[in-house]
Amino acid sequence: MKLPFEYIQSKAQKQEHTDEDIHAIVNQFTEGIIPDYQMSAWLMAVLQNGMTHQETLAYTHAMLYSGVQLDFSHLHGFVIDKHSTGGVGDKISLILGPILAACECYVPMLSGRGLGHTGGTMDKLESIQGYQTSLSLDTFKRNVKECGISIMGQTDDICPADKKIYALRDVTATVASNPLICGSIMSKKIAEGIQGLVLDIKVGNGAFMKTIDEAKLLGSLLTEVGELYGLKMSVHYSDMNQVLGNTAGLWCEVQESMDVLQGGGPKDVIALTKLLCKNALELAGLDNAEQKVQSVVDDGSAYEVFEKMVCAHGGSLEKSSKVPKCEIIVKAKFSGKIITMDTEQIGFAVIETGAGRKKQGDVLDMSAGIIFNKKVGDSVEKGEELCRIFGENEKKLEFAKEILLKSFIVNNEC
Amino acid sequence: MKLPFEYIQSKAQKQEHTDEDIHAIVNQFTEGIIPDYQMSAWLMAVLQNGMTHQETLAYTHAMLYSGVQLDFSHLHGFVIDKHSTGGVGDKISLILGPILAACECYVPMLSGRGLGHTGGTMDKLESIQGYQTSLSLDTFKRNVKECGISIMGQTDDICPADKKIYALRDVTATVASNPLICGSIMSKKIAEGIQGLVLDIKVGNGAFMKTIDEAKLLGSLLTEVGELYGLKMSVHYSDMNQVLGNTAGLWCEVQESMDVLQGGGPKDVIALTKLLCKNALELAGLDNAEQKVQSVVDDGSAYEVFEKMVCAHGGSLEKSSKVPKCEIIVKAKFSGKIITMDTEQIGFAVIETGAGRKKQGDVLDMSAGIIFNKKVGDSVEKGEELCRIFGENEKKLEFAKEILLKSFIVNNEC
Repeated sequence: MKLPFEYIQSKAQKQEHTDEDIHAIVNQFTEGIIPDYQMSAWLMAVLQNGMTHQETLAYTHAMLYSGVQLDFSHLHGFVIDKHSTGGVGDKISLILGPILAACECYVPMLSGRGLGHTGGTMDKLESIQGYQTSLSLDTFKRNVKECGISIMGQTDDICPADKKIYALRDVTATVASNPLICGSIMSKKIAEGIQGLVLDIKVGNGAFMKTIDEAKLLGSLLTEVGELYGLKMSVHYSDMNQVLGNTAGLWCEVQESMDVLQGGGPKDVIALTKLLCKNALELAGLDNAEQKVQSVVDDGSAYEVFEKMVCAHGGSLEKSSKVPKCEIIVKAKFSGKIITMDTEQIGFAVIETGAGRKKQGDVLDMSAGIIFNKKVGDSVEKGEELCRIFGENEKKLEFAKEILLKSFIVNNEC
Repeated sequence: MKLPFEYIQSKAQKQEHTDEDIHAIVNQFTEGIIPDYQMSAWLMAVLQNGMTHQETLAYTHAMLYSGVQLDFSHLHGFVIDKHSTGGVGDKISLILGPILAACECYVPMLSGRGLGHTGGTMDKLESIQGYQTSLSLDTFKRNVKECGISIMGQTDDICPADKKIYALRDVTATVASNPLICGSIMSKKIAEGIQGLVLDIKVGNGAFMKTIDEAKLLGSLLTEVGELYGLKMSVHYSDMNQVLGNTAGLWCEVQESMDVLQGGGPKDVIALTKLLCKNALELAGLDNAEQKVQSVVDDGSAYEVFEKMVCAHGGSLEKSSKVPKCEIIVKAKFSGKIITMDTEQIGFAVIETGAGRKKQGDVLDMSAGIIFNKKVGDSVEKGEELCRIFGENEKKLEFAKEILLKSFIVNNEC
């Protein structure tokens, strides 16, 4: 058995770890034998020097087997999930999940909280009055069986190594490493007991991946690892150079999701949801995937699944409606055509409203968010409404406004 | 003020820190605001991505001003010290220090313990019965004034930032970084209040720097930083492809040092001591440096200084003589000419005898060490004595023997 020091030194010197080394590192850290200060040095060495394909596989394997794996093989239906690498206004999980369940798939979805400038599905769901995001695995499994879908947070039983390593990566600037991202995402997804996984890799100024080349490197890695574990994989690269849909925040995003489930909502959200659902249903082997998706929206069955899931999680949609205490309208300072939205900055503006955390433990304002009136390509007149910021704390909204005013780039020569 | 996360991210992305950033990192870590796990990630990012010249200067400055600086400007004599980057059998400080003091220099020497496979001056001095290596700064200063020299360990008052950072680097494989090494060495040396510094950069299979190019990079950096602080600097690159002198261990190295101070001892130790002393006295502006060095050895005054310093530190040479409990003679397995000694491995063999630490807190065997009968270039007959291992624990000596047998490479075709 090597010393923790030797693992760090080896990776610092760009050497390759054996499978046994990787398992020892992950397990010894999870058990508290390797302390945080040594693990963070190793993680930084990995961020800087990468991992080989074999190392990434071993790392994912070690994360997966640090906890329990779910098994839905007794259910008569395709078990599937979707993973998005994160963006601003990305509420697709809330819509796609119920649609797939309405199409007779099973969707055991472990989701996350807001990360960096991006929003998180768990935070949004918690804006529904009473919605529980931490259930026992038994309740989760029952919900999946009975509603076709359950969305909650990671538990202590699933990939405990990832939970501990992720918390450390988050505060040591070691998140942006493809092998570490792969281990974190794929171990959790494989542990869900799914048969298929649809990836939505975001690319652009509001995504973690700024270029398509970076995105493709990650997409290929995730696909390959998933397939090695027997998962059917589909990967889509979607634009994150502006907010997805017209809302970014908490309850406002749930509302927009319900609009789409009921046949309304913004075009870009509808289009991306349909595309990802089609990809998912094709993995499940369904013919006429597009028609099927349209029909479960049209006949209301997708929305019914959503209501059923909310109810199974203890939530009440009736009691969730929120009228924000304060509202600020952001108006265009110039006339022209909007040529760019700095989406990462808009993500930080969303956090400023109170809909995201500036540090761990911050309490969220469920009523907070932004509604966008104008998006890239739209023409605006000076003084016209660009967007509307709302929440319970006017000061916070003012900070958000400052950021937003700098985030819309108008070409006033047009 | 930036968050610790931002400093780490910035260095991970190969950006340059401002002077203010560097001071904030060093000070916040020393004050416990930045926790170990974030500091170790930053240190690893520095190891991987380096620091610019300006960053290295700021880092050294921050380390220096984390504690007190000594002032010997009231003394009528050149205040000087020597620093070696570490080797096996390197006892030069014990000889050079008293010689320089006998030549009317003042030598306030803060030395270290064994590190990795190399020995440390403090450990060797502690093999002298009663010798105190942790004195108050007042006593240290009085000793320098009265004996011309005092050798002890780093105190809590001098560069506390370095003490804390060094402990973390030691267990996170972040030692081998030139800017970090520079900050650590130069801050302590500048804090000694010296006017001149002689560097002995070791190069070879028993040194931390394996090639002359690596060594020169470090040598230039240290020289430049020293000169910016007004120090007169001299740098020498010395061979560490075999043990220096005929002994490696604790008391045995003190004995060999006393031999040299009394006009005897091995040629290589004598030659290197004289060269470094000459460099030092030239920095001090003395003419006839070589003759001066020879005369203080010949007339016994250098040895007298050594005795006086030992006495001032509470030590007794009379009571220090040790007869090791056990001894093993290592004999050549083949006849031939010794073409290589794996000096790093020999350093580890020295540790195995009990003369070094395998982990923090290990108690040293002051009687332990190795005497070398044969060195590189010597011819040996099969069965002839290569070296002699001694100490109080026979088992440990056997482990050392195993390593030593593999460390002498004999060209038996000669």
